[in-house]
Amino acid sequence: MSEINRQILLAQRPVGEPGPEVFEVNEAPVPEPGNGEFLVKVLYNSVDPAMRGWMNEGRSYIQPVQLGEVMRAGAIGRVVKSRNDHFREGAYVSGMFGVQHYAVSDGKGVIEVDPSIAPLERYLGVLGMPGMTAYFGLLDVGQPKEGDTVLVSGAAGAVGATVGQIAKIKGCRAVGVAGGQEKCDFAREVGFDDVVDYKAEQAGKGIKRACPDGVDVYFDNVGGEVLEGALARLRLNARVVLCGAISQYNNADSLQGPRNYMALLVNRARMEGFVVFDYAKRYGEAAQQMAQWIQEGKLEAREHVVDGIDDFQKHLMMLFRGENFGKLVIKVQNDD
Amino acid sequence: MSEINRQILLAQRPVGEPGPEVFEVNEAPVPEPGNGEFLVKVLYNSVDPAMRGWMNEGRSYIQPVQLGEVMRAGAIGRVVKSRNDHFREGAYVSGMFGVQHYAVSDGKGVIEVDPSIAPLERYLGVLGMPGMTAYFGLLDVGQPKEGDTVLVSGAAGAVGATVGQIAKIKGCRAVGVAGGQEKCDFAREVGFDDVVDYKAEQAGKGIKRACPDGVDVYFDNVGGEVLEGALARLRLNARVVLCGAISQYNNADSLQGPRNYMALLVNRARMEGFVVFDYAKRYGEAAQQMAQWIQEGKLEAREHVVDGIDDFQKHLMMLFRGENFGKLVIKVQNDD
Repeated sequence: MSEINRQILLAQRPVGEPGPEVFEVNEAPVPEPGNGEFLVKVLYNSVDPAMRGWMNEGRSYIQPVQLGEVMRAGAIGRVVKSRNDHFREGAYVSGMFGVQHYAVSDGKGVIEVDPSIAPLERYLGVLGMPGMTAYFGLLDVGQPKEGDTVLVSGAAGAVGATVGQIAKIKGCRAVGVAGGQEKCDFAREVGFDDVVDYKAEQAGKGIKRACPDGVDVYFDNVGGEVLEGALARLRLNARVVLCGAISQYNNADSLQGPRNYMALLVNRARMEGFVVFDYAKRYGEAAQQMAQWIQEGKLEAREHVVDGIDDFQKHLMMLFRGENFGKLVIKVQNDD
Repeated sequence: MSEINRQILLAQRPVGEPGPEVFEVNEAPVPEPGNGEFLVKVLYNSVDPAMRGWMNEGRSYIQPVQLGEVMRAGAIGRVVKSRNDHFREGAYVSGMFGVQHYAVSDGKGVIEVDPSIAPLERYLGVLGMPGMTAYFGLLDVGQPKEGDTVLVSGAAGAVGATVGQIAKIKGCRAVGVAGGQEKCDFAREVGFDDVVDYKAEQAGKGIKRACPDGVDVYFDNVGGEVLEGALARLRLNARVVLCGAISQYNNADSLQGPRNYMALLVNRARMEGFVVFDYAKRYGEAAQQMAQWIQEGKLEAREHVVDGIDDFQKHLMMLFRGENFGKLVIKVQNDD
């Protein structure tokens, strides 16, 4: 085992897009687990839009990452030394271990995962947070009914592609919005009935074309013009699920609200935010259901794996530039 | 009876604020009721923020007023000639009779009102649409719980003042937002616990001061900065009731959406629109409850009565300039 723990620290708070100066590679000694703790060798890191919010100072649903701290990230790893009765050496675990090679944990928020059921990286995708987000956001907040038109932005992303597939499973018409030919092809491949390429046509026009009878549920991952285009096409009693606003996260000075939000009034519709952590007690239910759908061939999972944490800033920017297909995951190191 | 029917027609579609050129005074013969119809002598017209929307072309919850048509308006009148079995001569009735001295109706959407229970103009206020709007918007959409902080904009208006009072009846803390000393005094008088004068202090700062523990229900009549200020102070699982956006109705080119709408996500909150007409079947229940509260001295009703329809445009602008205290009503003519 290497005695060095390679880490990515938050060195500065970004203004707008996080540049290379925002992060710093650090080498620290591999920590020793104390009583009740265990040491995890981190194998995969999740790269998520929410990371941008964690870098900002100020009130949100979770504390910001402090300057000089290891960048927060979901991860999968293997327990390599344990002084905790619940997590034995050799177990594979999922937790917020951060962007680093080794982490010590007391087991809080950590769950064991089974590499015989699915490849490890999938536990950061459909069987992890993005999957949970899609499941509870669509089913609990969006409440789709059979025959509804469900519109999803970020349709080629980890969350969006899953939302579209669950919508199809539930008997809805699924329409995706994505940027560029390749992502649209990907969205069609996973099962969307129609796709709007916002780089090829104005989002609002595309949504009107693809949803001629309007939108019953809009699952919003992006905000901005796509949100406005969706609001303009709401049906009576429509539900807008606010999951993210990636188009706005790096927008330092002129954050845009949806100018036509009063469409909610005209259509007796609602726009509702949610945070997946609130559903933690029901993750088991969702994971079981998703695993079953995967087994039945109804739900396709795909991960986009990139290599090494040293390029963490570049990996993160891939996400904001929309260069990933499916769940973006960093392979941190070999499992040896 | 005068043989002339004086009317206000929509002559042009306004861009921004409706100027005097938008309306036209017209004289027509008093119409004759056909079989199943009756003739109403209009006594009071309601002046409502929603009128601005009715003047625009295009899709909304109700058809726009056509050019050359009598301006749509809620009204109270007396049946002066009847060929309809349900509405006898001499009955006082409430309906959408328009801004004119006489109207013929087939009884659709018309209800009889009782001048012995309350003055006629009150049936355009607390016992009419504004009252119904306050009642269903707050109780059904906002779902306030005892101890909640309920924030209400347009707190000196017909709807807002009633929302605040119902919130108090339900055991909530009621905080109002209004413009200017007089309106704030009025809001305090009807029972708001605290009031923010957005002309004296920045709305967001005032809301923070007056709602130190945050906002559970925000009843929005105005949109704009006040909506943003409220969003910034939402508590977990808060409800934003979209009732109107009077600050934006005359905003021709640069409608503003709430830039911090993602507060809905962070706080797992929802923003929901409603249209009072959807509750038509339950108006009776609400009117009965409101009448009881008035009788018990828990609910104060106030109307602001102005004279004559010839100045309709000026009366309407009073509303947008926030010059009315309580429900704005036009006395159309004497009941003789």
